[in-house]
Amino acid sequence: MMAGPAIELGITLRVLARDGADSAAQVVPGTEIGSETDLEALQRFAKGCDVITFDHEHVPTQHLLALTAAGVVVRPGPDALLHAQDKSVMRARLTELGVPCPRWRMVQDTTALTAFGDEVGWPVVLKTPRGGYDGKGVRVVGTAEEAADWLALGDALLAEERVSFTRELAVLVARSPHGQAAVYPVVETVQVDGICREVLAPAAIAEDHALAAQRAALSIAEGLDVTGVFAVEMFDTPDGVLVNELAMRPHNSGHWTIEGARTSQFEQHLRAVLDLPLGDTRMTAAHVAMSNVLGGDIAEMYSGYLHCMAHDPGVHIHMYGKVVRPGRKVGHVTTVGDHAEEVRARAVHAAAFLRGDIDG
Amino acid sequence: MMAGPAIELGITLRVLARDGADSAAQVVPGTEIGSETDLEALQRFAKGCDVITFDHEHVPTQHLLALTAAGVVVRPGPDALLHAQDKSVMRARLTELGVPCPRWRMVQDTTALTAFGDEVGWPVVLKTPRGGYDGKGVRVVGTAEEAADWLALGDALLAEERVSFTRELAVLVARSPHGQAAVYPVVETVQVDGICREVLAPAAIAEDHALAAQRAALSIAEGLDVTGVFAVEMFDTPDGVLVNELAMRPHNSGHWTIEGARTSQFEQHLRAVLDLPLGDTRMTAAHVAMSNVLGGDIAEMYSGYLHCMAHDPGVHIHMYGKVVRPGRKVGHVTTVGDHAEEVRARAVHAAAFLRGDIDG
Repeated sequence: MMAGPAIELGITLRVLARDGADSAAQVVPGTEIGSETDLEALQRFAKGCDVITFDHEHVPTQHLLALTAAGVVVRPGPDALLHAQDKSVMRARLTELGVPCPRWRMVQDTTALTAFGDEVGWPVVLKTPRGGYDGKGVRVVGTAEEAADWLALGDALLAEERVSFTRELAVLVARSPHGQAAVYPVVETVQVDGICREVLAPAAIAEDHALAAQRAALSIAEGLDVTGVFAVEMFDTPDGVLVNELAMRPHNSGHWTIEGARTSQFEQHLRAVLDLPLGDTRMTAAHVAMSNVLGGDIAEMYSGYLHCMAHDPGVHIHMYGKVVRPGRKVGHVTTVGDHAEEVRARAVHAAAFLRGDIDG
Repeated sequence: MMAGPAIELGITLRVLARDGADSAAQVVPGTEIGSETDLEALQRFAKGCDVITFDHEHVPTQHLLALTAAGVVVRPGPDALLHAQDKSVMRARLTELGVPCPRWRMVQDTTALTAFGDEVGWPVVLKTPRGGYDGKGVRVVGTAEEAADWLALGDALLAEERVSFTRELAVLVARSPHGQAAVYPVVETVQVDGICREVLAPAAIAEDHALAAQRAALSIAEGLDVTGVFAVEMFDTPDGVLVNELAMRPHNSGHWTIEGARTSQFEQHLRAVLDLPLGDTRMTAAHVAMSNVLGGDIAEMYSGYLHCMAHDPGVHIHMYGKVVRPGRKVGHVTTVGDHAEEVRARAVHAAAFLRGDIDG
């Protein structure tokens, strides 16, 4: 999704992908095939690039350090990226910065977990510090015994209080090496089984909570010296907002900006990592809704275009060229308009139709 | 500029270009190198394409007829395209359809031209029926003698009355093979020396003139059986609108739709030629201005980004990856907002800065 804005700005994108069938490889000329875990492939690829950036956070830290040591410009840098790769590092740093978080503790055995659970209340949320996404690497446990298998692996786990939130939120921020930062309106994310299904912009929350959320996101941007666009996932509670997770890249919770904001997160990321002045983050309409298209029963999703486009000439369909597997995010749809409920219903309908949940 | 929307819709674009350095070839994987005047190259390229379309009107008619005879789907079709290739065919057909045009006559010698000029008043606008664009192939003559050199070439020329217009307008229309048509708001085009410098949406004209302009454009779409997006250039006069030219493709006068309309002309063209339902043509803001970036004294135009983006976070810069030559359209900028004059001033400033006319 960065390819379109790069074309318009006349920025030459080069892609390193594991496979020529990867979404980005399909649409960017001259894609190099190689793994992000192969330092030599990274070094070869880096030659002739002004800036290296990522669409996920799984490039090994030691490789990024090797690249930067060799003079390659990597944005966001490995020190910042570490906070999205390791949740224990992230929690410690955010607590240091005074950013509101759920109560947390690193635990390595059932005794420590039991003590934490008794203190903050059960059930407790348990996370592997590295490697989780879309609900993977997260477990809610009612007793320490339920976590015995994970604890038996020997690594410390991140235990967090289970927050009773009213809504889940996300705040998108961009920051450039210059230190210029720009924050987007706070959005609500609707999650089902740990997977984001919908994003609603702006979030229908109290103004002081929205401001606190944006302030927290900006503090993180500066405190962690982030460059590029990143997303802060939060909980809204009656007492205020709490930071849940960081995603250090343009993020699913920001796809609504393609049509819904004056500058899309993808253009903004390019501007940020190239140290260009940042773009206007204001919304293009009063309300914007994004609904993810998850793989369902239909292998070839383009068959739904005819109905979706005829039913709603204003729906914006985005498909990623991925092989459809049940539950996989294979596309999204966005709608904009004046009324929150109407805009949301249109997006939900289109996404459900593309997935095959509605007969039309 | 079609590449971005194609990526989002998951449509695979293939490009035939004369040179790997052409704008489209730079950004679309697997571009084939070949000339649109070479039938064999066209036939090779057509294999495996569902639909063939163009970004200019200069593919020879006989080649298009050969392709369609061989079962290749070409949109717009050769019969429709002819009206954008040959101005005499266009004038005859529009007159037949009852579309308001300037008074015109085909003339082959000074006697005929003198008779026409004496009838409609001097000076007269003289056009070569084929091959003109951006002011080329057009001449304003005060007497028949001034056209002696063109008339000596022996081909009939199109003579038109010189319309004293208040504004130049353009209307963008999309039409699908199904016959569904969608029209965009009427815009004003500001031309200097026959080259479009600015587009202002919507045009500040009387509502009945705007409706008449849209009706004329829709009549042309249906009457000529056009498929795809095309632009009708018109004159606004105190007595109504008159059709000047047709451009049978997404057009410079429609670049404002990328940010300024709910569906850009490039997405709309893809939808139209693929016979998908058309998208919403409404504006995203009260006023939109587009200013062309013409090649000036600066060979490397990216140097202006820092100033333009810092000066106006809302300006949308589009650069085409073309070699800069004085007067050549090498990019454009778009601004949106609530106030016509402010939006226009912002676009003019950014384009002038990128060109090198302002020191910043």
